[in-house]
Amino acid sequence: MTSLEDLPLRPELRGRTPYGAPQLPARHRLNTNENPHPLPAELLADLGEALGRAALELNRYPDRDAVELRTDLAAYLTRSSGEEVRVAQVWAANGSNEVLQQILQAFGGAGRTALGFTPSYSMHPIISAGTGTAWVDGHRAADFTIDPSAAVAQVREVAPDVVFVTSPNNPTGTAVALDTIEQLYAATTGVLVVDEAYTEFARTGTRSALTLLPGRPRLIVSRTMSKAFGMAGLRLGYLAADAAVVDTLQLVRLPYHLSSLTQAAARTALAHTDALLATVDAVKAQRDRIVAALPAMRLTSVPSDANFVLFGHFADAPAAWQALLDRGVLVRDVGLPGWLRVTAGTEQETAAFLTALAAVVAEHGGRT
Amino acid sequence: MTSLEDLPLRPELRGRTPYGAPQLPARHRLNTNENPHPLPAELLADLGEALGRAALELNRYPDRDAVELRTDLAAYLTRSSGEEVRVAQVWAANGSNEVLQQILQAFGGAGRTALGFTPSYSMHPIISAGTGTAWVDGHRAADFTIDPSAAVAQVREVAPDVVFVTSPNNPTGTAVALDTIEQLYAATTGVLVVDEAYTEFARTGTRSALTLLPGRPRLIVSRTMSKAFGMAGLRLGYLAADAAVVDTLQLVRLPYHLSSLTQAAARTALAHTDALLATVDAVKAQRDRIVAALPAMRLTSVPSDANFVLFGHFADAPAAWQALLDRGVLVRDVGLPGWLRVTAGTEQETAAFLTALAAVVAEHGGRT
Repeated sequence: MTSLEDLPLRPELRGRTPYGAPQLPARHRLNTNENPHPLPAELLADLGEALGRAALELNRYPDRDAVELRTDLAAYLTRSSGEEVRVAQVWAANGSNEVLQQILQAFGGAGRTALGFTPSYSMHPIISAGTGTAWVDGHRAADFTIDPSAAVAQVREVAPDVVFVTSPNNPTGTAVALDTIEQLYAATTGVLVVDEAYTEFARTGTRSALTLLPGRPRLIVSRTMSKAFGMAGLRLGYLAADAAVVDTLQLVRLPYHLSSLTQAAARTALAHTDALLATVDAVKAQRDRIVAALPAMRLTSVPSDANFVLFGHFADAPAAWQALLDRGVLVRDVGLPGWLRVTAGTEQETAAFLTALAAVVAEHGGRT
Repeated sequence: MTSLEDLPLRPELRGRTPYGAPQLPARHRLNTNENPHPLPAELLADLGEALGRAALELNRYPDRDAVELRTDLAAYLTRSSGEEVRVAQVWAANGSNEVLQQILQAFGGAGRTALGFTPSYSMHPIISAGTGTAWVDGHRAADFTIDPSAAVAQVREVAPDVVFVTSPNNPTGTAVALDTIEQLYAATTGVLVVDEAYTEFARTGTRSALTLLPGRPRLIVSRTMSKAFGMAGLRLGYLAADAAVVDTLQLVRLPYHLSSLTQAAARTALAHTDALLATVDAVKAQRDRIVAALPAMRLTSVPSDANFVLFGHFADAPAAWQALLDRGVLVRDVGLPGWLRVTAGTEQETAAFLTALAAVVAEHGGRT
């Protein structure tokens, strides 16, 4: 039996374990921030037709540059942000993970550094490592907010090649003020990636960093169809940036990276944008219901602009995680002492979560 | 207007242009080695059903480890090679390009070196560059064969971390003897990747490197469903190796890299393996027809185990390429002076190609 130690793998990979939330059986899976709402029937019908049409040509390579899909994504971004986004400014890949990996291959890599404000999306440092990019933890305040002047000072000092800002942040949930993003852009000579995976769930009045794109060629806004669009199984991430950034990414993208089926399904989903995003308000209502229910259990949460809530404070968060799982509710232990993260699901899922949580708190005690 | 020069991209990317065959309009597109046969009707029906079922769950993330798909791939490899391949030995990704990129992320990268015997699949050096891996051109003889003792000597001298052998080779078409692969494996301390993208088209009696896997934990055999399976639009590449190699790749793979649609469509196609591979003999017949027709035009070819033919010798291959395109036939100029590559298509496509070629030779002259 060969072990990893016997193989000539890169030394920094030794002793590591693969990334991923535990895939455990549970009645209520509220651990990966999926959208719990099934796709609308009329979308399913159109998907069947579009995929059937794409299958007829599956023996041919897909459009390498995914121009029609990028055109549709640009139209969505323009419509939702009020900022004109052209097709040449949009790029797409298999999940925002691949988008981010391409950014790091082009602007990071060996001898270069990325900085992100942890805790944040844990794939940022992992993809940085996978591309040989050094990683520096950016500072957050104790309440998980980013202090603009401290952040600017750190970016000036570290001079990273790639800066990540997740807004709304995962796993804490809070959107970052555009003013902070502007200041960070001015402070860096590298590229600034604003990861807006959860932006469609933001509280009213929260503006997208898309509105900052004009005149900022080193600014990149990444998005996904996995969350608000409810298409996690599709694996479609995308970005908007200066057209020169998109040209650069075409130097590192794997040719024909997006399958014909992915392109067809994503375009079909975008044609049903209004029906898909109709679930956003329902999800936000469940999020706010969770937030509102916590104080009665002597628990608290971080203000959330996303489809999840970081809640605590527990004396022993892993024990609380297990106690919830024992009651059929799978949430996420993101490794922050005292905190757990729960996805805002359906009304029924939220009820099951709150009932289980009340029982856990009654049994184990809550706030310390 | 921002240019690439204004962006902080990696210096080695400056001045590069994106990879890819020109996507030109032409009556007969014989430039990317696609399988020209449409998918069988019964497969299309099953695909429609399977994709429709997968769409119902598109709001959920796919199986991160694609276990069912890998089980089906292992069964196919076992059946076709006679060598038992277990699910733990199989890995899959979005095209063999992504498989190869993951191999280079794990075993190549900054400070490491890859070697491949050029001319070969041009993505090998490009993906190496994309992962920061240095590239060394391996030597071939003038007839494009690999001389085992010269190759072994070069591998010993360079001591690469990753060695690529493409068999059947692209763009030349010839399979590499297993004995050569055994010798190269013994000569390297790195991993040896045998890229068998075209293996199903090999001439009778050609054995797959899968039969060499037992006892060789640093040997990796990569495959694709793009060619013989006729599923270029699906983007499904895979590999077989020691289970420890698969464990290693899970450290660098992006989580949820294979969409639910990709997994469902690939499994459905594998259930129709016999019907899909029934086109292989037809394609091989057209390949052999091309080879047989060349001498009468005072042209020659390299012995081919693939679904394409490298043919020449032209005094001016780019001019011949253009002259063929002017007659509606798009072939590939792979940058080898005097040679062009043509995909073996349908009977009609081959006829059109041979007619156009005869006219070009009559007009411009052929062999020099």
